[in-house]
Amino acid sequence: MESKIDTISDGTVTTPQGFHAGATAAQIKQGSGDKLDLGILFSQELCVTAGLFTTNRIKSAPVLLCQERLKKGRAAAVVVNSGCANASTGKPGLADAAEMAALTAKALGADAEDVLVASTGVIGQRLPMERIREGINHISLSDNGGHDLARAMMTTDTVPKEIAITASAEGLRFTIGGVVKGSGMIHPNLGTLLCFLTTDAAVEPDFLQEALHQAADVSFNMVSIDGDTSPSDTLLLLANGMAGNPPVSSGGKAAELFQQALDQVCIHLAKAVARDGEGATKLLEVTVNGAASKADAALAARTIVSSPLWKVAVYGHDPNWGRVVAALGRSGAEVKESSLDLHIGDILVLKCGIPQPYDESDVVRVLARDEVPVTLDLNMGTASATAWGCDLTEKYVIINSQYTT
Amino acid sequence: MESKIDTISDGTVTTPQGFHAGATAAQIKQGSGDKLDLGILFSQELCVTAGLFTTNRIKSAPVLLCQERLKKGRAAAVVVNSGCANASTGKPGLADAAEMAALTAKALGADAEDVLVASTGVIGQRLPMERIREGINHISLSDNGGHDLARAMMTTDTVPKEIAITASAEGLRFTIGGVVKGSGMIHPNLGTLLCFLTTDAAVEPDFLQEALHQAADVSFNMVSIDGDTSPSDTLLLLANGMAGNPPVSSGGKAAELFQQALDQVCIHLAKAVARDGEGATKLLEVTVNGAASKADAALAARTIVSSPLWKVAVYGHDPNWGRVVAALGRSGAEVKESSLDLHIGDILVLKCGIPQPYDESDVVRVLARDEVPVTLDLNMGTASATAWGCDLTEKYVIINSQYTT
Repeated sequence: MESKIDTISDGTVTTPQGFHAGATAAQIKQGSGDKLDLGILFSQELCVTAGLFTTNRIKSAPVLLCQERLKKGRAAAVVVNSGCANASTGKPGLADAAEMAALTAKALGADAEDVLVASTGVIGQRLPMERIREGINHISLSDNGGHDLARAMMTTDTVPKEIAITASAEGLRFTIGGVVKGSGMIHPNLGTLLCFLTTDAAVEPDFLQEALHQAADVSFNMVSIDGDTSPSDTLLLLANGMAGNPPVSSGGKAAELFQQALDQVCIHLAKAVARDGEGATKLLEVTVNGAASKADAALAARTIVSSPLWKVAVYGHDPNWGRVVAALGRSGAEVKESSLDLHIGDILVLKCGIPQPYDESDVVRVLARDEVPVTLDLNMGTASATAWGCDLTEKYVIINSQYTT
Repeated sequence: MESKIDTISDGTVTTPQGFHAGATAAQIKQGSGDKLDLGILFSQELCVTAGLFTTNRIKSAPVLLCQERLKKGRAAAVVVNSGCANASTGKPGLADAAEMAALTAKALGADAEDVLVASTGVIGQRLPMERIREGINHISLSDNGGHDLARAMMTTDTVPKEIAITASAEGLRFTIGGVVKGSGMIHPNLGTLLCFLTTDAAVEPDFLQEALHQAADVSFNMVSIDGDTSPSDTLLLLANGMAGNPPVSSGGKAAELFQQALDQVCIHLAKAVARDGEGATKLLEVTVNGAASKADAALAARTIVSSPLWKVAVYGHDPNWGRVVAALGRSGAEVKESSLDLHIGDILVLKCGIPQPYDESDVVRVLARDEVPVTLDLNMGTASATAWGCDLTEKYVIINSQYTT
């Protein structure tokens, strides 16, 4: 039997066996009406759990709490809210995060130490604990509740972002699900995002953390919306083992399949975040080939996809590809102008550093697509990387000039 | 006699003795009508000359030419155009830049090796040499021509940016003048800018380069408009010695006065670039005190002033100061959340990492000013730095989505 990965239609974070979720409208932001803003993800079996967190030196209270609790490498539940990030709130904020976990544990009959917390929204404001206390008691969990959870996490996201896939091979079959929220303050490493991944596969703890790291490197760490990195970024992967397989560990076919499936889930969610960037009208994809090293390829791709001037040019369908070259040059990656080839879509505009003749309207047509791919060949080595982002529009300015008021 | 520095009303780059300039409308961008776009700066005496150039690894042809010629540390003239950057143009572009210098030398009766070149505008297009050949012959120089030169350099700048000051002390009196253009693709180090500084002081070559470096570190290297760095950044300082003073060299009172005067000119021009950033409505100033090192202070100040989310918040008068904290945290500077104080204008909003009570309308009033200052005290050491930038508006998007078309 060959190994196989299939996307499950309408799949979400509760699609893997034994995961339940639910959400409620707790009015964390006053006047938010019936918008879901508080949710719980729960596994009926205790999970081996891996996590990756913001590289920002100022970390939100929930991030500090998760980092502490994940030293044990396990969790049974995650409680999450939007509308308030519980960041820049000092010790009182830490106490609020701990109370959120304790309340959730009590409602679920779980151990408080096994509950993780994530919050997203305005920085520098305390959580409205009264409304959270009441809200948690109103959440009912179901094995189809992932869709509500995905909605409860949204801030300026315009669509919920979720997926599930099944992977199978000789004697092995498991499911991975995931939900993610963007959509501003997104920049490598780990764009401002909250992402929860679940799997019913049994996985060795060390391999789980290593696999999550590898998957993030080709997905969430390759996404940029605006160059700002949030204090709240949280990526969690819970594995409850209910598929009954021998635990997946490093090396071998099972590990390879698990990594492949996890990469696919993470790349899908990362691209969904980029596509739904604040005010975005399209997905930008930048591929750098022929770099001297993997690190150079990633640096160059991420710098170009983050360039405000290229993002605005694509939005305006302006074939100003010199901005791609300028961003490459400032990226820090090793480049030689006379070795550089550049394609916009499949149109060659620069060969060995010299502008090529092309029909401008062809380039404009590429820029008008929903997905705009750019490919650079540095011809310095053999390493490649791809990064994703979105265009920069008036709407990004409008959304973010009125965020707290 | 005490030392004294005075700003000269209506001063410009030709205010120091012996400098002449002029400009013409060469139609480098077709259909640009009578917009000045080609200019010459000339000194009647050969100048000791210092230069600083873009850190971008892809450099424009004029930058490569200037770097080569400045190995001799002298120049008599600069020819400059807007409308085309002569970047990403390969060897033909280098030949065009050399021809521009040769044509200018011929018109002035100077040595071609003593003519420097600067170009700004679209990347990836060849210079229209026919129009440049004709244009150079139409330029007439005058000792009040700096104003025309300042206009000829402008791309999306809305106002010419120029200054002159006189400095005097016992037995010493000299003038420094300067012109600069912004106003997009501006980011440390050396925002996309062309800046020409002139002085009639006699200055030792080594000290001149050192003084320019120091002045750039507190001015142009502390300005950011959009995080993109241009392949064309050029900062030149020409000293023709016509003030007749004994050459200023490192150490001593004269060097101190020269540095002070040069810093003042550069800070004035750098702030003018920030204030006139593409689409900007106001000047942002970020001061970081109490940093562990000078490098940390500069890194933190520049990162915050570059944060798209803070720039947009200020534009919208949205008191979302959490974005300042988030940008500080990702800057890489050493910070401890529990030591951090933050003032918006003179309103304390965060003390030892804890949000303070304040009247939101007071903060909104600060954000509504033409100049919005923010001060952070890291309480980690004694180093300070100030950076300047501008708000991010819909107009930045509109300007840059239609740049080449």
